[in-house]
Amino acid sequence: MDEYPEIITGGRILMGPGPSGVHPRVLRALGAPVLGHLDPEFIGIMNRTKSLLAWLFETANEFTIPISGTGSAGMETALVNSIEPGDRVLVCVNGLFGMRMADIVERCGGELDVIEGEWGRIIEPDAVEKSLRARPAKVVAIVHAETSTGVLQPLEPVAEIAHRYGAMLVVDAVTSLGGAPVRVDETGIDVCYSGTQKCLSCPPGLAPITVGSRGAQKLAARKSKVQSWYLDLTMLHSYWGKERFYHHTAPVNMIYALYESLRIIHEEGLEQRYERHALHSRALGAGVEAMGLRLFAQGGYRAPMLVSIAIPEGVDDAAVRRYLLSNYRLEIGGGLGPLKGRIWRVGLMGHSCNRENVALFLTGLESALAAQGLQVEPGAGIAAARAVYK
Amino acid sequence: MDEYPEIITGGRILMGPGPSGVHPRVLRALGAPVLGHLDPEFIGIMNRTKSLLAWLFETANEFTIPISGTGSAGMETALVNSIEPGDRVLVCVNGLFGMRMADIVERCGGELDVIEGEWGRIIEPDAVEKSLRARPAKVVAIVHAETSTGVLQPLEPVAEIAHRYGAMLVVDAVTSLGGAPVRVDETGIDVCYSGTQKCLSCPPGLAPITVGSRGAQKLAARKSKVQSWYLDLTMLHSYWGKERFYHHTAPVNMIYALYESLRIIHEEGLEQRYERHALHSRALGAGVEAMGLRLFAQGGYRAPMLVSIAIPEGVDDAAVRRYLLSNYRLEIGGGLGPLKGRIWRVGLMGHSCNRENVALFLTGLESALAAQGLQVEPGAGIAAARAVYK
Repeated sequence: MDEYPEIITGGRILMGPGPSGVHPRVLRALGAPVLGHLDPEFIGIMNRTKSLLAWLFETANEFTIPISGTGSAGMETALVNSIEPGDRVLVCVNGLFGMRMADIVERCGGELDVIEGEWGRIIEPDAVEKSLRARPAKVVAIVHAETSTGVLQPLEPVAEIAHRYGAMLVVDAVTSLGGAPVRVDETGIDVCYSGTQKCLSCPPGLAPITVGSRGAQKLAARKSKVQSWYLDLTMLHSYWGKERFYHHTAPVNMIYALYESLRIIHEEGLEQRYERHALHSRALGAGVEAMGLRLFAQGGYRAPMLVSIAIPEGVDDAAVRRYLLSNYRLEIGGGLGPLKGRIWRVGLMGHSCNRENVALFLTGLESALAAQGLQVEPGAGIAAARAVYK
Repeated sequence: MDEYPEIITGGRILMGPGPSGVHPRVLRALGAPVLGHLDPEFIGIMNRTKSLLAWLFETANEFTIPISGTGSAGMETALVNSIEPGDRVLVCVNGLFGMRMADIVERCGGELDVIEGEWGRIIEPDAVEKSLRARPAKVVAIVHAETSTGVLQPLEPVAEIAHRYGAMLVVDAVTSLGGAPVRVDETGIDVCYSGTQKCLSCPPGLAPITVGSRGAQKLAARKSKVQSWYLDLTMLHSYWGKERFYHHTAPVNMIYALYESLRIIHEEGLEQRYERHALHSRALGAGVEAMGLRLFAQGGYRAPMLVSIAIPEGVDDAAVRRYLLSNYRLEIGGGLGPLKGRIWRVGLMGHSCNRENVALFLTGLESALAAQGLQVEPGAGIAAARAVYK
């Protein structure tokens, strides 16, 4: 037997919390011949990628680039550049990614304050105000769509409060960008980062980030070097800017793929894309509820690109996911941390967000639950979803 | 005119300091359908990639993985994990990448000692011993093939001295790995990192790293958290190890590409590959000298995968490079920092290292120099190279 066989994969139907399905055009762009990272042809692609990213973030920030790492590298970039040792930082935690932010704040010497919210519910803006009134902070950090729970956080009131108390706002839009309005400028976000493998429907590996005037001022006024050389935004800005000051070697082909995925989003249009995500997640949610299951995230604040479902009593989480993977080639996610075994996370992200995937998931879930001995009215899920599409 | 045109590129003949040319098989692997990062199929690919990387590093270190960032992220990973605040670190600097190491050491709170070597010459092992005798250090850091100068540093004596004085050795093998013997275990390297876009002939975006027993002990004995969450090797090890403890989302398609590029190296064989690099760089060097030009790097210590050439008096650096790019579709590199305008850097890395590229470069250079009004005996370069191949 061959110890190192060729990769021959048909892929999967990706309805987990990311990576999402990728359009064949993006895969084709990924496989285009490599150019030097200082080649004039490639520099044109870099410039157009920046411009499309700013369009996607709905910002006029010139400082808008992809970081050469995954979404978590985007998180670390946003925080290590915004925080100097001793800065007080308020992190809103209602899921795993808020926890991760708190961890990074401590690693870069920030004085950490935390608002502990319930997993599955939003952070109440009042709690942010109460904390800032009691203990002023220089930075407030919050997750837009918490990938571990499926909750979509309203950002406008948090931005207003943060600014009123003289803090800048760092937002994690890893899961939301491209699937729900982020609108960096209108919302008043000072630093916002994302990842390519969710609603952008590009393979994982890059983290778009944008920095507004408060963020840029903070950077310019720093007394200490950013602790990470690789993620130093001032240096990255010179590399992606007119100076083209050599920093690291850009991941050329991943940038091809990001550019192509942004072109696809541009062709669809942002509002159309947001509506598409809202529509299909309504349909999927209605189907799930019609099958007698319960949606996990707080009503009214459900992220359209990630539906979290409470696992019914007595149903074997892993067995259901295995069933879907082996019988339907369909991947969904399980719960993380305290939610392990308690929820499923079903992604409807970018290219994966479509009617056929909704139908396939509901059909597959019905079979999987039946295999677990759970009584579900046949076809009830599909019928409820169909009613949404009418 | 279309503001955002499709990427349609024929690529280039990449003979710069990286990225190097990529085999079509690697581009095809890059474009394979995305799998979830926890998919059993993908986990198999991760395991085989680890195993091939250990083979390539010539190490038994179980702790051998690709970091999800470019070579510079590999450098930062090696240093932030090996250094705790207050640790004394000796960095050997004889080029840009040594300077970068020194910068990172300071950013992670190390007490920096530097041996300043001449750019274009090796670091004399005696200088390392003298420094350690005077001021003991916990870590010695050195570059194997200095990409800014084309010098190949002998590592064995440095490893022996470092260990004799109780220091661990961190080696930058970004440019050398896969093109010249690194032999981590035999040489006695404690932490070694590389990049994918040089002699591995994979697009830029990943940084292979391996950690030996001294490095692992240092990690286990740390009193402080590693300052980078994204590059925390202990967490990365749990993610890539049997635990599969969720960390970040692996850059799935880049790992496909790395795996395929490692398969190609495995098919060729390491010794054959080293000989191929040695042969073609001898031929290119002979050709360049026969044209009356001077090789820049110290004789006897020239990196086989990166030939540095002193730019003759009166020749316009940028004009020659533009000439090659526009007439031959051929990319070579200029000098960095103090060597800007003083040298060319010609890569013969991995898939780019072959006889036709040697011939093309010598032919192109002859024309480019003629266009600059420099007298070169027609065909002298090619004839000298041909003599090497006999």
